[in-house]
Amino acid sequence: MRRDAFAEGYQRVVEWPLTGIAVLFLGAYSWPVLEPGMAGSLRRACSVATVVIWAVFAGDFLLRLGLARRRMRFLREHVVDLLVLALPLLRPLRALRVVTALGRLNRRAATSLRGRAMVYVVGGVGLLGFTAAVAVLDAERSEPSASIKNFGDAAWWAVTTITTVGYGDRYPITGAGRVAGVGLMLGGIALLGVVTAALASWFVEHVSRQEREEADLRVQVSALVEEVRALRVELRRTPSELAQQEPGSGIGPTA
Amino acid sequence: MRRDAFAEGYQRVVEWPLTGIAVLFLGAYSWPVLEPGMAGSLRRACSVATVVIWAVFAGDFLLRLGLARRRMRFLREHVVDLLVLALPLLRPLRALRVVTALGRLNRRAATSLRGRAMVYVVGGVGLLGFTAAVAVLDAERSEPSASIKNFGDAAWWAVTTITTVGYGDRYPITGAGRVAGVGLMLGGIALLGVVTAALASWFVEHVSRQEREEADLRVQVSALVEEVRALRVELRRTPSELAQQEPGSGIGPTA
Amino acid sequence: MRRDAFAEGYQRVVEWPLTGIAVLFLGAYSWPVLEPGMAGSLRRACSVATVVIWAVFAGDFLLRLGLARRRMRFLREHVVDLLVLALPLLRPLRALRVVTALGRLNRRAATSLRGRAMVYVVGGVGLLGFTAAVAVLDAERSEPSASIKNFGDAAWWAVTTITTVGYGDRYPITGAGRVAGVGLMLGGIALLGVVTAALASWFVEHVSRQEREEADLRVQVSALVEEVRALRVELRRTPSELAQQEPGSGIGPTA
Amino acid sequence: MRRDAFAEGYQRVVEWPLTGIAVLFLGAYSWPVLEPGMAGSLRRACSVATVVIWAVFAGDFLLRLGLARRRMRFLREHVVDLLVLALPLLRPLRALRVVTALGRLNRRAATSLRGRAMVYVVGGVGLLGFTAAVAVLDAERSEPSASIKNFGDAAWWAVTTITTVGYGDRYPITGAGRVAGVGLMLGGIALLGVVTAALASWFVEHVSRQEREEADLRVQVSALVEEVRALRVELRRTPSELAQQEPGSGIGPTA
Repeated sequence: MRRDAFAEGYQRVVEWPLTGIAVLFLGAYSWPVLEPGMAGSLRRACSVATVVIWAVFAGDFLLRLGLARRRMRFLREHVVDLLVLALPLLRPLRALRVVTALGRLNRRAATSLRGRAMVYVVGGVGLLGFTAAVAVLDAERSEPSASIKNFGDAAWWAVTTITTVGYGDRYPITGAGRVAGVGLMLGGIALLGVVTAALASWFVEHVSRQEREEADLRVQVSALVEEVRALRVELRRTPSELAQQEPGSGIGPTA
Repeated sequence: MRRDAFAEGYQRVVEWPLTGIAVLFLGAYSWPVLEPGMAGSLRRACSVATVVIWAVFAGDFLLRLGLARRRMRFLREHVVDLLVLALPLLRPLRALRVVTALGRLNRRAATSLRGRAMVYVVGGVGLLGFTAAVAVLDAERSEPSASIKNFGDAAWWAVTTITTVGYGDRYPITGAGRVAGVGLMLGGIALLGVVTAALASWFVEHVSRQEREEADLRVQVSALVEEVRALRVELRRTPSELAQQEPGSGIGPTA
Repeated sequence: MRRDAFAEGYQRVVEWPLTGIAVLFLGAYSWPVLEPGMAGSLRRACSVATVVIWAVFAGDFLLRLGLARRRMRFLREHVVDLLVLALPLLRPLRALRVVTALGRLNRRAATSLRGRAMVYVVGGVGLLGFTAAVAVLDAERSEPSASIKNFGDAAWWAVTTITTVGYGDRYPITGAGRVAGVGLMLGGIALLGVVTAALASWFVEHVSRQEREEADLRVQVSALVEEVRALRVELRRTPSELAQQEPGSGIGPTA
Repeated sequence: MRRDAFAEGYQRVVEWPLTGIAVLFLGAYSWPVLEPGMAGSLRRACSVATVVIWAVFAGDFLLRLGLARRRMRFLREHVVDLLVLALPLLRPLRALRVVTALGRLNRRAATSLRGRAMVYVVGGVGLLGFTAAVAVLDAERSEPSASIKNFGDAAWWAVTTITTVGYGDRYPITGAGRVAGVGLMLGGIALLGVVTAALASWFVEHVSRQEREEADLRVQVSALVEEVRALRVELRRTPSELAQQEPGSGIGPTA
């Protein structure tokens, strides 16, 4: 009981600091990539920062694992966290915490399911695009025959990939760059899917509200209302009819 | 009170002239790009026209801002107008007013939500494609290593981009051209999304109208109607039963 | 009156022969393109056949125009027919009649809206792909720098275009070839849209039938049924109660 | 009767072994492709295994054909099995049995329609991607001018194709490779369609449950409930009114 309460309190306290640190990680990861001519000491500082932040997240994971009642279940449910910790390539994705956190902030205001899904996907796709552009630049820059050599090209490649346009004027040739590309393609499918689905559900909702229900249901239900109203009228009529009939035919002769 | 009425009247009076001027802007912007061998004086005239029309729209924006009751809210709600005014690259998009205006004309006739959305998107995508083709041609033409050198190539590139096909036989290499490309790709996602969503909602509406309601609801509601009808029959039966019972059993003994 | 009856009878009689002739047109159009080493006399025969069939369709159009009551409206409603007659590039699309005819045959059997839409789009997309491949081959073959030089390449290009993959290993460079390409891209958007929409409406129908109605509506309507049933029970109770109460309390004292 | 029972029993007994053998086939087919420097004896063993497994599947098909009551109908319904047997290129697709079998296993647990469709498509797309990558590598490797020469390139090509990105840095040039590509493109359309459709139906279900029914139906039905409730109140009132009225006006004079 007390362990659960502590785990919950820990989560609440730690949520925003960890989100901030995840953003710092993204900065410390991307800054040296984006500025190749960085001073060696600053570069080393960024490198140290990424290792320290990684260690903080590893500690957070182990603490939460320790606090969990059913550890195997915790591992099963947090397999993405585990992958992000273990695989260096996925680490910048930790910044997706920001999107989740923003979504949580937003939850109070926006009650629209579609709006929230759009915020998650558009925010996630933007961050994924930036991260993939940085990762691909980091991976490809040193390759002599690569076509992605500066951040402009990397960002352009990321946009053409995520929209599934894929000109092929720029494309990754290293394994790490291609893994980033696959992530972008999957993100692109999600983007297209969510945009289309949100539009479709909006159409379905408004068109059907406008047409279907007006046509079928309203007619039937209002016919039913009429029926019940007629019934009530009939009911109101009967006692007086009863009263008028009684003296004359049924009870009158007894007088 | 009077300021609101004036603002509303101003909007009504100014709407169509501004739409016409926005079309003129698109013409004065694209003509010199499409015809490189244009006489210098005409080119200067077009250049002057774009500046004058820009000034007219800036004046319109400032006037509406001045007339607005809550200025911060006005700025928040018209941030797109502000961006179109401020960023030269986005200026030709002002011609999208035509689509909005056509949509407004159409509103009286077409009551179909889906139809109107299709008109907006197809019209907007067409205009966006033309504008992006002109913008990319303007940006790329002077670049020696560019692959888009005439309007035919630019239009072909715009179509391959907006449908997310992206052969890569033509692609922008300048920053401005790539920004136009990103606009097209987003337009392409919107196009695909709206077409799919309109089809999906059409299917949902017609399939479900045909099957679902016939099966479930109609059965239940008509069962309910039957129930109420039976009730009314029973009600009609009771007064006479009452009348017949009264002389014999309940009231008869009083005689 | 008699003119309308004649027009209707004419349409019925002429429908299948014209569909057959449209298929012949597609054959006579594509055969010389697919077999460049064709004997000159056969090539001339094909050429004559396309002209004759064109004349037949022109005659059919004029006759139907003559029979129409309101000619301007007829032209407005048959603008696609007019375009297919006027523009040589669009002529092979006349073979799309086959799809429409097949759809009409199918109408008796298949009552599923979605199924019919899929048949139209898949059939139309297949025919459009073949026609575009032939048209692009015809247009590009004579171009020295073209990348589409045989039917295999043209068909491969058509498939990569219609699925919006667009590798860019093959692409049209002539105006006519690019027009065929634009047709394919639009067909591809339609294909993707219909497939997605059919799946979405299938999900919506089955998921919602299963869950939504069970949960919300059924509960409410059956509550209503309960209400009415209780009402009927009460109604059945009242006459006898009335009969029992009357002698004792209301009418008894009069004795 | 006994033949049907035997056929059913045969199917049940043979299902899992055949699925296992189909996986073996995929292994024996892809291993030599993935490891070109394989020992000659092992390569021969794989080759023998594929032939033997093919013969097993051919025997299974013939046996089921023999057991079928209506053979023409059996052939019509199993035309895909027949094609997979007849066409060498399609043979690895037999491994799709695994997905079907997994789906059958899953059926007990997962009752969600959307979830099951996602499992089928994601599983099928993954297997299709692997098979197409192996097939394309097998077809292209020996071609001097091909761009797909190792499994990494083939897998990268498969992913860019199935997501319809299509950079065009790698593409098949042989007939067999292009057929594999067409399969992937169709799989990609299915993937995009199912993801979008599942999202759309999820939105439709949750949004509409939340909004539509609350707004329209609930209002109408609860109005109806009110109406019926008022009716019941009135009904309860009438017998006593009747009782009070009877002594005074209708029956009183008889006293």
